[in-house]
Amino acid sequence: MHPNLLLTKKTVEIIRQEKDKYPLFHNTYQKIKNYIDSVIAEPMDVPVPKDAGGGYTHEKHKQNYNEMYYAGILYQITQDEKYAVFIRDMLNKYAELYPKIGQHPQSKIETPGRLFWQTLNENVWLVHTIQAYDCIYDWLSPQDREKYENNIFNPMCEYFMEHEEEFNRIHNHGTWMVTAVGMTGLVTQNDKYVQYSLYGTHLDGKGGFIKQLDLLFSPDGYYTEGPYYARYALWPFFIYAEALENNKPELKIYQYRDSILKKTLNALLQQTNTNGAFFPINDALKEKTWQSEELVIASNLIYYRYDKDDNLLSLVNEHGRVILSYAGLVVAKAIAKRESLPEFKWKSIKFSDGADGKQGGLAILRWGNNKEELSTLVFKYASHGLSHGHYDRLHFLYYDKGSEIIQDYGAARFLNIDQKFGGRYLPENKSYAMQTIAHNTIVADEKSHFDGKRSRAEKFHPEEYLFDISDANFQYVSAKEKNAYKGIELHRTLALVKSHQHDYPIIVDVFRVNSDTEHQYDLPYYFMGHIIDINFDYEAYDNQRVPLGKSNGYEHLWVTAKGKGNGVSSLTFLSDNNRFYTLLTTCDNSTDIYLTQIGANDKNYNLRNEQGIMFRKKAKNHLIVSVIEPHGEFNPTLEYTKNSYATISDIKVLYNDGNYTVIEIINEDKSGINLFIANNDPSKNKVHNINTGNAQYSWKGPIHLKYIN
Amino acid sequence: MHPNLLLTKKTVEIIRQEKDKYPLFHNTYQKIKNYIDSVIAEPMDVPVPKDAGGGYTHEKHKQNYNEMYYAGILYQITQDEKYAVFIRDMLNKYAELYPKIGQHPQSKIETPGRLFWQTLNENVWLVHTIQAYDCIYDWLSPQDREKYENNIFNPMCEYFMEHEEEFNRIHNHGTWMVTAVGMTGLVTQNDKYVQYSLYGTHLDGKGGFIKQLDLLFSPDGYYTEGPYYARYALWPFFIYAEALENNKPELKIYQYRDSILKKTLNALLQQTNTNGAFFPINDALKEKTWQSEELVIASNLIYYRYDKDDNLLSLVNEHGRVILSYAGLVVAKAIAKRESLPEFKWKSIKFSDGADGKQGGLAILRWGNNKEELSTLVFKYASHGLSHGHYDRLHFLYYDKGSEIIQDYGAARFLNIDQKFGGRYLPENKSYAMQTIAHNTIVADEKSHFDGKRSRAEKFHPEEYLFDISDANFQYVSAKEKNAYKGIELHRTLALVKSHQHDYPIIVDVFRVNSDTEHQYDLPYYFMGHIIDINFDYEAYDNQRVPLGKSNGYEHLWVTAKGKGNGVSSLTFLSDNNRFYTLLTTCDNSTDIYLTQIGANDKNYNLRNEQGIMFRKKAKNHLIVSVIEPHGEFNPTLEYTKNSYATISDIKVLYNDGNYTVIEIINEDKSGINLFIANNDPSKNKVHNINTGNAQYSWKGPIHLKYIN
Repeated sequence: MHPNLLLTKKTVEIIRQEKDKYPLFHNTYQKIKNYIDSVIAEPMDVPVPKDAGGGYTHEKHKQNYNEMYYAGILYQITQDEKYAVFIRDMLNKYAELYPKIGQHPQSKIETPGRLFWQTLNENVWLVHTIQAYDCIYDWLSPQDREKYENNIFNPMCEYFMEHEEEFNRIHNHGTWMVTAVGMTGLVTQNDKYVQYSLYGTHLDGKGGFIKQLDLLFSPDGYYTEGPYYARYALWPFFIYAEALENNKPELKIYQYRDSILKKTLNALLQQTNTNGAFFPINDALKEKTWQSEELVIASNLIYYRYDKDDNLLSLVNEHGRVILSYAGLVVAKAIAKRESLPEFKWKSIKFSDGADGKQGGLAILRWGNNKEELSTLVFKYASHGLSHGHYDRLHFLYYDKGSEIIQDYGAARFLNIDQKFGGRYLPENKSYAMQTIAHNTIVADEKSHFDGKRSRAEKFHPEEYLFDISDANFQYVSAKEKNAYKGIELHRTLALVKSHQHDYPIIVDVFRVNSDTEHQYDLPYYFMGHIIDINFDYEAYDNQRVPLGKSNGYEHLWVTAKGKGNGVSSLTFLSDNNRFYTLLTTCDNSTDIYLTQIGANDKNYNLRNEQGIMFRKKAKNHLIVSVIEPHGEFNPTLEYTKNSYATISDIKVLYNDGNYTVIEIINEDKSGINLFIANNDPSKNKVHNINTGNAQYSWKGPIHLKYIN
Repeated sequence: MHPNLLLTKKTVEIIRQEKDKYPLFHNTYQKIKNYIDSVIAEPMDVPVPKDAGGGYTHEKHKQNYNEMYYAGILYQITQDEKYAVFIRDMLNKYAELYPKIGQHPQSKIETPGRLFWQTLNENVWLVHTIQAYDCIYDWLSPQDREKYENNIFNPMCEYFMEHEEEFNRIHNHGTWMVTAVGMTGLVTQNDKYVQYSLYGTHLDGKGGFIKQLDLLFSPDGYYTEGPYYARYALWPFFIYAEALENNKPELKIYQYRDSILKKTLNALLQQTNTNGAFFPINDALKEKTWQSEELVIASNLIYYRYDKDDNLLSLVNEHGRVILSYAGLVVAKAIAKRESLPEFKWKSIKFSDGADGKQGGLAILRWGNNKEELSTLVFKYASHGLSHGHYDRLHFLYYDKGSEIIQDYGAARFLNIDQKFGGRYLPENKSYAMQTIAHNTIVADEKSHFDGKRSRAEKFHPEEYLFDISDANFQYVSAKEKNAYKGIELHRTLALVKSHQHDYPIIVDVFRVNSDTEHQYDLPYYFMGHIIDINFDYEAYDNQRVPLGKSNGYEHLWVTAKGKGNGVSSLTFLSDNNRFYTLLTTCDNSTDIYLTQIGANDKNYNLRNEQGIMFRKKAKNHLIVSVIEPHGEFNPTLEYTKNSYATISDIKVLYNDGNYTVIEIINEDKSGINLFIANNDPSKNKVHNINTGNAQYSWKGPIHLKYIN
């Protein structure tokens, strides 16, 4: 019985009756109908594959599958034959073209496609096209069906399955591939394909969709490649899950692994800034937000298949469009009934990484009750993240008042722009964006973590030491990394503190490094904003400029100035959100401070020219403490400026050894806070006592905050 | 009878009755009432003046006058004495402070203030405070009135008038000063003050408000300092005009000079990008938009006092607030009655400069029917623009799809940010932002126009040669500058061409330079976007960087690459509006091409690090033709890219001499356009004939466009 993937005979009938009742569904439907009607009026083109991403033939084949996909849905809803004719005509062209072409001329990888330079795009082509085929299956003649299956669908599936390693790979490329083959099996009643898709080409369950559900997400729903790829990976997961639910309800795929699909969507939605942009950890483009098509599909299906979570409705409403299936009708109806929708709720949360949930994680500390005032601190102590992973152990990001304040560079790539290396990852992605120095974490001896070797990086992960969000005004997370460098232990503790002393939450960053031998430790912060004030002496390299180093990403950083530590350095910058931020950092006079600009050794202008500050110190053991204080306001419209100076004036390390670290953060008016940290004992009730000679300290638990008034 | 400035006894009564009837007025009123109620609950501070702009005492005195101003209005509307008490208490503190203080300690200029570092802020203080005083005049005891007038208002006015030169100056500072004194005169029934304010300290009409109305605006309403300062200058013009209209209707101030006040507001509103940001010509901060308070006041008063122009209502609605006077009530009522408002209408328009309208001008060529598709080309051939003028003759700016594409740097200043030179203009404003090389126009021999001397620059202005916007799809403007360099004539023609050959309008830039002697001509374009592709060979200065030059702004530009002309250079960049732009420029192999980044010799990080491309050629006569083609789309949400390559592939100069220039712009598919320009004959009907030997051309009028299909 067709259709039998996302649309079914039964749900299509309901859609036909109710499609105009709910504005979101009606508008989406009308928009797509108008679009496809205009497409049908134009000449069709199924070009011989030639171009890489962004080029004409690449984009045209993408356009074609999208148009067939929508035309299929329209045929089912309207029962107007012109849509079926459109798909048939196009399939005829593909049935002629596909058998004739070999490997794509632009393929430079191990998994070359035929219509596209990589099989990945071809998988996506099939996922869409098979849905269109499903929609007109009953309308087609048996001869046509045979032609398409023999000339396109079956050979394409066989071609995919010949790439056995890719097919059985536990990776988003694998998910797309098994989804394409599995959905083809469901439509063509080829259960072998379905079984391969579920359990791998050897049917041993070591590859395939089920194993991917087992291994690609942590028990919390965290996707190891990070949110940018989670977004992309979600697409086939949800589409195929829905197709399986409609055909093999006995699999209970939505309930599988304690409802992992629901968890992973929720995890993904939490990994966003208030504009919906995904945290750009690992390879990620910053332009991507939850406005992506994948999120439309996922949010609609999850709302429909699970417990009608209100938190999803504001997102659906922001999308302004729905999936043209029964799930889309359900969300459109839910929204039509509401007078108002609650704002999406971002919260403090932690995600474990690894299939077993024991390979580090990602912590998000948040403060604020609404979008406008939300502060977000993201601490990454997850595992490497497969081929898109960066060497960024114990790295953090910070957002405030809607803006990136301490950034992750993301990936060096111009997606689909042909002139930029065919739209693929640029060489600078590896030479800069992946390297440790591109991240807000410590680099030892100018070498990236694990010496920039993925094989080593994938063997290890940091260990969570502490995580506590029970007090909204004092949240903290701490983790240790013992393998990034041989013989060096990294231990970072980050806290978000909202005290009565400051208007906004401050960030406290306590980074400890221990080693038996001397190393050079570099800690950069990539701050976003215009430099307003610097309190340390520096030599400006403003008449001649040279790169910071020769390799491991250092060659891509210009030194714009070099200064000397003076106890506590202070750098104030103005964000595009019109708030000031002051970064204060402990630095003795043997610390060198560098101001940098990204973009050296970049003859093709592939990098963004953003800036950083870096603290360099040679030592065995090292402690560097930073505080970021947001303050004041620059108001160009009403022409006033408030509190352009920070209130925090000093940071003192009162005590520091392997076991304990005691910090004092002091304001101009002498008030402040003490932070007592036990470095090796996470127990909540243990009482710690230390005697510095000058003073005695006593506190309970691994971290204690004390106000000095 | 009080109040008698913007509020009058009669209008206040209407406001009392109708204040809650119209949402915009009601909301503004409530917001201000809530604000002032919270202010009254806090301790009052009238500090001894100490800080420069952005510092505490500076900002506090600004806050104080604003609070008194609003409290006065609230007293009149609510008749609640607490507001009057608040003003009286604060005036008591000022009456004590003011007689004791001398010149402000931070004053480094010829017109030092006492409460503030410059008299300008003090004028603004008085303009606000005298309105508050007016509102509680009747409530105050005669003794208090005497105290305030003797201790504050009169000495302050006398102090201003002692700065006779400033008071009589035809300049926005002068306008603020005469307004402060004039309004004080109206409130204190001191007609002498009013007469001085209107006709200058010698009552000869050579200075004062009336002369300012005569001289500061061109007959079209263009304000010679440009829109950023027009915005600021408008404030006292409108406030004082309204106060005069209420007190001296016989002056017919709103009708004065063919309703110049209405014209100047309309001119100002047209000098904006679609986000309401004023064109940043001359000294200007880019953050300033028509959301400024001055525009709230001006738009409300103009709507009320003139012909209820619909075009103002969408702006008022966008403001979301109104002036709390009868004009505000009128606009709020007009909007409350509307179901929908028309979008603000930007149009192609030209403004003459100079009081006589004969000192060059500013041309704005626009294409597109709505905000989203609007293309805006701004050509500046105005006079110098007083002390805030830049050396930017024949400079242009280009906006498209909401974004700056070819920018003017604006001013180097962080307004009100104490750490940045006390919030004043930074040294880099003079050393870079004002210099010719900071603008998109030709620099000869690395020297700014008029050798960067204002006294010389103010003597001359460019001359308009052509301006025609009658055909929306082919608009052009042309002007000549003969005095910027001795012995060099600059002649630039700019056209906005929307042809069937391109999706969006293209910009054509024909820049001719004539001289009897050889010079080095530099033409920079400051493009906004990420470089996507460059078609000429260049040496990247990406491992070591040095400044472009040593003076006149050149010292602030890093050379990031240097290339050689190859016939027609092409540079493609991607704007933040996700559209591609390709700049094609004629350049023979004796042309050097520089890619630059702003920010060399900027040890205090005062400049923005934006980029440019510059064409350098040594010649006597020179012709440089550029075309900017907007094309395609980068869509990161839907993951597609369209037309990342330009369709224009070549520019040919078919003919060029002192009399005629013939250009051919050719597309990939061999279609294109010819542009025939007569360089010295603006007559519309003249038929021109030239014979190149190879070809004969004949056309009518100064410019003719011909399509090649």
